[in-house]
Amino acid sequence: MAGVQGSALAVAVSNAGGLGSLPCAMLSLDDLRAELAALAAGTSQPFNVNFFCHTPPVPDATREAAWRSVLQPYYDELGIDISRVPAGSGRMAFSHETADLLSAIRPPVVSFHFGLPSPDLLQRVRSWGGKILSSATTLDEARWLETHGVDAIIAQGLEAGGHRGLFLSDDLTTQVGTLALVPQIIKAVRVPVIAAGGIADAAGVAAAMALGAAGVQVGTAYLLCVEATTSPVHRAALASDAARHTALTNVITGRPARAIVNRIIREIGPMSAVAPQFPLANAAIAPLRAATEARGSGDFSPLWAGQNASGCRNVSAADLTRELMERAAGQAVRRAR
Amino acid sequence: MAGVQGSALAVAVSNAGGLGSLPCAMLSLDDLRAELAALAAGTSQPFNVNFFCHTPPVPDATREAAWRSVLQPYYDELGIDISRVPAGSGRMAFSHETADLLSAIRPPVVSFHFGLPSPDLLQRVRSWGGKILSSATTLDEARWLETHGVDAIIAQGLEAGGHRGLFLSDDLTTQVGTLALVPQIIKAVRVPVIAAGGIADAAGVAAAMALGAAGVQVGTAYLLCVEATTSPVHRAALASDAARHTALTNVITGRPARAIVNRIIREIGPMSAVAPQFPLANAAIAPLRAATEARGSGDFSPLWAGQNASGCRNVSAADLTRELMERAAGQAVRRAR
Repeated sequence: MAGVQGSALAVAVSNAGGLGSLPCAMLSLDDLRAELAALAAGTSQPFNVNFFCHTPPVPDATREAAWRSVLQPYYDELGIDISRVPAGSGRMAFSHETADLLSAIRPPVVSFHFGLPSPDLLQRVRSWGGKILSSATTLDEARWLETHGVDAIIAQGLEAGGHRGLFLSDDLTTQVGTLALVPQIIKAVRVPVIAAGGIADAAGVAAAMALGAAGVQVGTAYLLCVEATTSPVHRAALASDAARHTALTNVITGRPARAIVNRIIREIGPMSAVAPQFPLANAAIAPLRAATEARGSGDFSPLWAGQNASGCRNVSAADLTRELMERAAGQAVRRAR
Repeated sequence: MAGVQGSALAVAVSNAGGLGSLPCAMLSLDDLRAELAALAAGTSQPFNVNFFCHTPPVPDATREAAWRSVLQPYYDELGIDISRVPAGSGRMAFSHETADLLSAIRPPVVSFHFGLPSPDLLQRVRSWGGKILSSATTLDEARWLETHGVDAIIAQGLEAGGHRGLFLSDDLTTQVGTLALVPQIIKAVRVPVIAAGGIADAAGVAAAMALGAAGVQVGTAYLLCVEATTSPVHRAALASDAARHTALTNVITGRPARAIVNRIIREIGPMSAVAPQFPLANAAIAPLRAATEARGSGDFSPLWAGQNASGCRNVSAADLTRELMERAAGQAVRRAR
């Protein structure tokens, strides 16, 4: 998940035998260059780089004004001048500039969220032998991704933390739990399927493998790892009972994402009809977050988490990865017999 | 699930080695007596009887009027006089009259939905040695049920079809996918945990067992069985691509339940703020259902289904039960080694 880790966590996971992932959605080109260099220097094992490939938003002054009027009371409460907050800027979607940087490092795996970038961009990844992954939240999305040539599909169950990958519909009733989604996608496509959402420990890995998954993607369980850059308020929330109540919300970025329910989600969400298009909603939320986090409060923070935070522990990512993999290996051995 | 099966399906499941269940929520006392007799006559194996234990609704004329104004256009379209539709009657909750009937049959297992009935009613079940089960949709509900003395907890994941069992909160964001819910409940309680929601085939059973579940509850996969009383429009929907899109809706009964998205859910739901209290909403929906089902349409029908209808086949319940159990048994054997 973007915002809670950098190359250090990905390096630790890859060196422990997993496929470490670097979330690149919030990195500038300069930061991306530096993180890619750190990743390549830190491990000789395969790794993955993850990008968002959303359509850039069209700013809408009316919607932005409506959004700011919803947030005005919080600005008043915190004594911040909302008129000085700049309009939102886009979050980097995968682009030719990104691909230029990647081509120097040739990441063996590149994964996408919100569908896929254009065919010419995918071709650039293929040019260095990069494998292409993307998330499907429905059967239709899985079939679409297979048709568009992905090498494997991440079946992102409803339990998963962070942004929902949905891209063919914005109807949240289409979103399906992992236990139901994974087997249906496996039946529908021929490419390998990676299970994501709600997998927090070795038993969860074994369950996903029993469903026929070729692998698992684990996010939330890593958020308390020593290598994660998870903020103190986020760590505190994950370690508390608060983590048991998450919701899909669009009030943080404009796009549905699963986060621990905090004040802003409770009071104006979880889904707001006036939140600006992703990622523009975040511009007017960010100052509220900055002001409250400085006081040790996560009231306005993006407390990303899946529906199963029970695996979160303050351990090294290497130890966690080995724990998760041992059981998966055991399962594979039983199958091979 | 109530409305799609009677004793015949339960008998077939119990005789095949599963724990057949009779849904009693929609039965009159006379029908209950007859169904219990058929169940007891049909099998010498253990069986379960399931009851709702909701608080009886308080009729609210204003809300009923608002509800009828929402439905008026459909009545106009179908040429039915809404003024002749009687106000809703309650659906039977577990009561001393129910317990009187049960005491003659002494069902070995009695399960409840929406919490538990009063302690004196539970005591009556215990008096004949009956084991008591109930559904938890959150960790809080699981702990509450354990404190109140259940013998096992059904962890009802978000994927499950029919009514959500939630009873400590009506906030649907508290509802958790099976893969996330089951292991968290197992960690929190000492009683056996039965996994429910999204389990459609032997691989799903194996996955639930890998999570540590003591058993599984399977509903949707039985809906096309020859012994089920599933209506023709419901069967057609389950066998079609329509079954891939379900939603939690309160427009059928007033309480959130998972059903295949049909016209009434799409147009006035999935969640309606004016739907009368469970089960009163159903009174004004029922004539619309009757009129349209007569024409072969499920536009207003309760098309209950979970998020994984891929296991639905027109087979005998005995065959389906044996298929599901073989894999579970295999898993148990592997564990015992």
